[in-house]
Amino acid sequence: SRSIDLAVIPGDGIGQEVVAQGLKVLSAVLPQDVKLETKEFDFGARRYRATGETLTDADLEALKQHDAILLGAIGDPSVPSGVLERGFLLKLRFAFDHHVNLRPSKLLPGVATPLAGQPEIDFVVVREGTEGPYTGNGGTIRKGTPHEVATEVSVNTAFGVERVVRDAFARAQARPRKKLTLVHKNNVLTFAGHLWTNTFNKVAEEFPEVTTDYIHVDAATIYLVTDPARFDVIVTDNLFGDIITDLAAAVSGGIGVAASGNINPSGEFPSMFEPVHGSAPDIAGQGKADPSATVLSVALLLRHLGHETEAARIEDAVSADLAERGTTTRTTEEIGDALAARVSG
Amino acid sequence: SRSIDLAVIPGDGIGQEVVAQGLKVLSAVLPQDVKLETKEFDFGARRYRATGETLTDADLEALKQHDAILLGAIGDPSVPSGVLERGFLLKLRFAFDHHVNLRPSKLLPGVATPLAGQPEIDFVVVREGTEGPYTGNGGTIRKGTPHEVATEVSVNTAFGVERVVRDAFARAQARPRKKLTLVHKNNVLTFAGHLWTNTFNKVAEEFPEVTTDYIHVDAATIYLVTDPARFDVIVTDNLFGDIITDLAAAVSGGIGVAASGNINPSGEFPSMFEPVHGSAPDIAGQGKADPSATVLSVALLLRHLGHETEAARIEDAVSADLAERGTTTRTTEEIGDALAARVSG
Ligand SMILES: CC(C)[C@H](C(=O)O)[C@@H](O)C(=O)O
Ligand SMILES: CC(C)[C@H](C(=O)O)[C@@H](O)C(=O)O
Repeated sequence: SRSIDLAVIPGDGIGQEVVAQGLKVLSAVLPQDVKLETKEFDFGARRYRATGETLTDADLEALKQHDAILLGAIGDPSVPSGVLERGFLLKLRFAFDHHVNLRPSKLLPGVATPLAGQPEIDFVVVREGTEGPYTGNGGTIRKGTPHEVATEVSVNTAFGVERVVRDAFARAQARPRKKLTLVHKNNVLTFAGHLWTNTFNKVAEEFPEVTTDYIHVDAATIYLVTDPARFDVIVTDNLFGDIITDLAAAVSGGIGVAASGNINPSGEFPSMFEPVHGSAPDIAGQGKADPSATVLSVALLLRHLGHETEAARIEDAVSADLAERGTTTRTTEEIGDALAARVSG
Repeated sequence: SRSIDLAVIPGDGIGQEVVAQGLKVLSAVLPQDVKLETKEFDFGARRYRATGETLTDADLEALKQHDAILLGAIGDPSVPSGVLERGFLLKLRFAFDHHVNLRPSKLLPGVATPLAGQPEIDFVVVREGTEGPYTGNGGTIRKGTPHEVATEVSVNTAFGVERVVRDAFARAQARPRKKLTLVHKNNVLTFAGHLWTNTFNKVAEEFPEVTTDYIHVDAATIYLVTDPARFDVIVTDNLFGDIITDLAAAVSGGIGVAASGNINPSGEFPSMFEPVHGSAPDIAGQGKADPSATVLSVALLLRHLGHETEAARIEDAVSADLAERGTTTRTTEEIGDALAARVSG
């Protein structure tokens, strides 16, 4: 489309700084004839402290009017753990049915990794985003007593599992290696494991060209550090996806460059793009944050909206910048400026 | 005690080979005046295929008569996923109330790690063993239909959390660094997270010398590859512990050297010691398996039974052997012989 109407949520901590650079690069990469409109929303810790609100129905209605959402980071030590996570981040993912949580990992040339021998890393995790142990089902009885019992219920539906598995197969099919790995723990979590495994095997029949593979989540963490090249596309549940994508980010350049998309493939609701990292309050406002993860999230956003050329241009710019960067330390703004210059050049 | 009455479960795949070496080293390390008696049990895939049984009440009664249990590995591709895991391994851990699942990680000198720069790694994970998502609570409705719903319930009790947290604090207190890290996901799994965090903070008051720390499980996987030296003792739930101990094993020399104890601290039931690795059917019977993890599990077993000198002797032997081993390939038996020679020397 020839215009982009973006909801922007800078959020807390370094969110403000990195989103500013993300928008700078976005403006620089867009051709003249694509009109960019942005509307900023003040969600996050400040608003919660001032009003007690995290995300209201009216907020959701307002966000829904936009083509996509760019988020910086949400979270602050002044707010009790869980309040903004459940009350904002997860509420939004669930309300807008962001069931495909897309997290690519690519170790770019010249980028430092904690792994020895600079292995080849180029895979995508498709993390389910609306089910599993993230539903908030469960509860507590006899809270605060020696007889307290707290439960968490992982909810998995055929509908929810099948749609994300099919999405992952389609993504695997579109990649050169055409390989899809299911990550679960089906030998212990046998109810959910059976649903995931059966669904995976059933949908596989529709994609005869895709090679399939199954790995337990514990073993997957081993392969991520000993043989990450074995992965092409991974599909997994919400919690396992949360865990392995942080590890995947760590081995492929760190969370400074890990981008993600919370995607509603039907387009019924706007999709949301955000760096995998958090608000990092310890370094907020100091110009130390690397905006690359946000800039790469902008690339995912552009690709989602059909602007493939511009998405690729951003990815090439980040790649070139990282290769050139070496050990020099630059500020958040310097990196943003360098990337903006590259994409418009 | 001056005698050890051991139940031995070689199990499947490489279990047979590695347990034979574990017993060889055990015999070699024990002083003349400690009488060792062993009784072998044929649990695992063969027995299941022959009788349909995994672990009967009579089996539990028989195992209960012993001072401790040494297990090789259980699992075979001929048995559907979950049958032996739930029907044997987990059934035994639950029946014998093995609530402290102890998994030390130490990167020994000369041992290969996938991490660059040979970091210092020396920590212990105390994984809860009888609760969390491992209880088997949950179920399936409308199985096999497009309306299937499968749930898994993580059950956490004040009783269960407090005893394992207190055990972990005591272990941290006894180590030079006296540091304990709670790993959970309390910002999303808020019911269980609240119970774990509150219990952790409450028990911390009894251990004023222990430094405490909290990390989300996703971030923990990052630190395990970027800064494993930050960990001393970790306490965590059953599933998170499963995941991070495989990663911990991978970075600290591989699952070839990762030992574990399933401990019932009260002594009401015998504790069980086993390598973290599985039955590895692909290399079974070829003499390729490294028995070091089993031998180190024997060391944990000896320490548990009060034979500290012998436990340390085994650990020193494995350490010296690994330092000397370099890239030479030796058979399972050769490694066992070398270790037996060292501990008796
Ligand atoms: C902040 C938290 C709710 C979130 C999650 O667990 O999904 C984060 O860890 C992530 O991966 O985006
Ligand atoms: C085989 C399986 C049941 C087991 C577990 O998940 O606990 C294994 O992975 C382990 O870590 O001992």
